[in-house]
Amino acid sequence: MEDKNLEFRRRMAAFYEGVGDFLPHLSINCVIFGFNGEKLKVLVTNPFMTKTWLIPGDFIFKSESIDEAAYRSMRTQLGLEDIFLRQFRTFGESDRSFSLEMDEMFQLTHVAPNDYAWFTRRFVTIGYYACVDLQKSNPKPNVMFDSVRWIDIDEIDMLGFDHEDIVWEARRVLAKDIMDLPVIANLLPKEFTIPELQKLHESILDRDIDRGNFRSKILRTGILVKVGERQTASTRRPPGLYRFNMQQYEEVLQEENKIGF
Amino acid sequence: MEDKNLEFRRRMAAFYEGVGDFLPHLSINCVIFGFNGEKLKVLVTNPFMTKTWLIPGDFIFKSESIDEAAYRSMRTQLGLEDIFLRQFRTFGESDRSFSLEMDEMFQLTHVAPNDYAWFTRRFVTIGYYACVDLQKSNPKPNVMFDSVRWIDIDEIDMLGFDHEDIVWEARRVLAKDIMDLPVIANLLPKEFTIPELQKLHESILDRDIDRGNFRSKILRTGILVKVGERQTASTRRPPGLYRFNMQQYEEVLQEENKIGF
Repeated sequence: MEDKNLEFRRRMAAFYEGVGDFLPHLSINCVIFGFNGEKLKVLVTNPFMTKTWLIPGDFIFKSESIDEAAYRSMRTQLGLEDIFLRQFRTFGESDRSFSLEMDEMFQLTHVAPNDYAWFTRRFVTIGYYACVDLQKSNPKPNVMFDSVRWIDIDEIDMLGFDHEDIVWEARRVLAKDIMDLPVIANLLPKEFTIPELQKLHESILDRDIDRGNFRSKILRTGILVKVGERQTASTRRPPGLYRFNMQQYEEVLQEENKIGF
Repeated sequence: MEDKNLEFRRRMAAFYEGVGDFLPHLSINCVIFGFNGEKLKVLVTNPFMTKTWLIPGDFIFKSESIDEAAYRSMRTQLGLEDIFLRQFRTFGESDRSFSLEMDEMFQLTHVAPNDYAWFTRRFVTIGYYACVDLQKSNPKPNVMFDSVRWIDIDEIDMLGFDHEDIVWEARRVLAKDIMDLPVIANLLPKEFTIPELQKLHESILDRDIDRGNFRSKILRTGILVKVGERQTASTRRPPGLYRFNMQQYEEVLQEENKIGF
């Protein structure tokens, strides 16, 4: 603990030396979605020595693009490499600053108010969402955070600042983007069952889908390739295991787009 | 001309006094779409005494939200009130600054380099698109512009800075949003013919649509209400005039959303 505390203070000092290298009043935030076979999950972080839970975020170096800032932040804060990230909206209310919340957070870490003035400014934040395979991604927080964890999409009212609103908006866009292959494919393991795929759709759209309809509709499109059966202890018929036929998916997607008037 | 020149200098001076009131490194840009019954159009502006054509843009006061900045800018720069505006993407490449272009522009207006240093910084710009009824909207440029005009969507390579890229991206999003009622309804007069509606879709999607298919598909949805016939000099059967059945449109849209898997 002593070591981590020292490292944290060293980082804060380094941060303040580097403040001039950031674009002022600008930040990025990432809503990282995962799926555990049952529910949509969101990755949240707990900044060092605070009781606040937030989605990951960072500032933007003057020398990097906003996309680069998002990828760098995922890599250096959480050790997440090569993930699927998509910009979805910029949040810029005139009163978007969090002085009170910051006072509480930083008093807990015994940092003097002058030393966190930067954080209390108005920030316009550029929102990204990410879709990751929960089984494969193993986020490891750096020293700025006490811990990270996955929460259910319906637990996001625990988030600080306006991060609940940001997650809601990301989920709304995710539902709009649900036909995009990378969105769905990155949330699932390479092989999955049709009920799992249906649960993912239900979880993103926040409504039930008829089981028979879903199965027949999706098989009819030809976007799934059967690769085997899932071994279970049960004596019931084992569920089929599928993967996406990427080429067919692209074609179906183009056809779907033409369905509009 | 003399008067306008003086007024321009007065505005530039006022602008520089106000620079501290803007969020640094941040701007908004608006892609204003219209439709003349044949083609998708984009509103472009010609800054005072320059040869450059740009889409409208502005800076963001520290006291206003990014949305407010977009609406204010449409109102004060172009006299456009109550238009349909939607944020679609933020552009933030690390090399997004236009020193060379600015040198050329401002030398033409005989402004000293120091006096336009603000404009040559890196800017992250938040893109909005607008859909307006060409027949009703009558943009009037303020003193900062020599003129404004509507150009065809396929003429946008004439635009300065990276504004061609911004318009392309806006059009890509417009095509994705084509099922949204406000997008379509705001581009059309209140009453329109089915061929006009089809041309609008073709112009947004940048491809031909089969005439018979389009007609039968759209009539089947019930989103159109026939209100009469367009009077023409021709002896051919006059084309039907329609307006949207807003309630039915909402219902169809929800059904369409359910078509996905």
